[in-house]
Amino acid sequence: MALSPTPRSRLRRRVARGSHDRGVIDAILDEALVCHVGVVADGAPVVLPTAFVRIDDHLYVHGAVANAALGALCTDSGGCVTVTLLDGLVLARSAFHHSMNYRSVVLFGRGERVTDPGEQRTVLAGLVDRMAPGRSDACRPPTPEELRATLVVRFPIREGSAKVRTGGPIDDAEDYALDHWAGVVPVRLVRGEPQRDEATAPPVVTSGLVT
Amino acid sequence: MALSPTPRSRLRRRVARGSHDRGVIDAILDEALVCHVGVVADGAPVVLPTAFVRIDDHLYVHGAVANAALGALCTDSGGCVTVTLLDGLVLARSAFHHSMNYRSVVLFGRGERVTDPGEQRTVLAGLVDRMAPGRSDACRPPTPEELRATLVVRFPIREGSAKVRTGGPIDDAEDYALDHWAGVVPVRLVRGEPQRDEATAPPVVTSGLVT
Repeated sequence: MALSPTPRSRLRRRVARGSHDRGVIDAILDEALVCHVGVVADGAPVVLPTAFVRIDDHLYVHGAVANAALGALCTDSGGCVTVTLLDGLVLARSAFHHSMNYRSVVLFGRGERVTDPGEQRTVLAGLVDRMAPGRSDACRPPTPEELRATLVVRFPIREGSAKVRTGGPIDDAEDYALDHWAGVVPVRLVRGEPQRDEATAPPVVTSGLVT
Repeated sequence: MALSPTPRSRLRRRVARGSHDRGVIDAILDEALVCHVGVVADGAPVVLPTAFVRIDDHLYVHGAVANAALGALCTDSGGCVTVTLLDGLVLARSAFHHSMNYRSVVLFGRGERVTDPGEQRTVLAGLVDRMAPGRSDACRPPTPEELRATLVVRFPIREGSAKVRTGGPIDDAEDYALDHWAGVVPVRLVRGEPQRDEATAPPVVTSGLVT
């Protein structure tokens, strides 16, 4: 399955690196932990990082109910959600052909507030499960009050594209004779050893008395 | 030194996590390899990832001369440049208090095209040196033609703020009695072993004949 190109999502530059394929797009969305949400506020762009989860044909973000950027994402001007995975630094024989290996997705659209508590719960569980598989069953679930304090926004995976660069440097033919080192320095996001929080409940403070 | 807050860059939510301090901002900018540039195109936001380098009081990005987003960054509506480093996944006893440790910078402003070839060369060397120290002296420098094909944009570090979350989960007092595992899974971007490119010059193709 593929997304249909629109004037703003058709591939223009570096077409060979682009894709509208949902398999390519979903794999990137399902690996990344952070997206960058762009909205327009007072005519100027604002870009903020946030956690997200993909479920079927939507990507979901969340925040406090008063979150201005998420509110703006649900207005007519809509927004752009971009997800980027950095895979390598590409060192070419020429400065000009230095590059990066990456996989990115750029999606355009308008967000919608999720108002159904069941869908809210599914999304919030999905967000927690991205941090550790099964985590939503291994922590206290949200209370109705916590749900009311949370804005969950659904964003369609309908208009946009992926872009992927892989492989080594591509130099001009005459530069291959130069003896500069050339190649790729792979980079990746790794998870370290989990660090247990040993904190216990802070003492309850009542009228200046610690009890 | 600190950036002066403006209506859009003053700290509103999670004020304790925010900072206008240039030391905090610069340290984040100097560690990250990718920024997300937000501009407005036809009234709607567009967010694209790109490499960058900070030199003194500016952040620089570059692309092909026809790059539409970089062109838009230099118009009156300006843009937003956001840099995010993910440091950890914060698993709380409650789903609601799950969070992430991160360091981010959000800058607002208007870009300017760099037209001086000397400044262009300094910036392009700086971009290459971010991949590996001293790299700009260990590869072929840009030719005048390559400089003419490259758009370098200067973006001021003048209006914006940093936001930083560190440490373990902060649960509601009554939840500390729950026996769910809680803590932090650290994450970081690591560089792998450099992979040398063994390619030699591709054969020259002339009129269908490989010579």
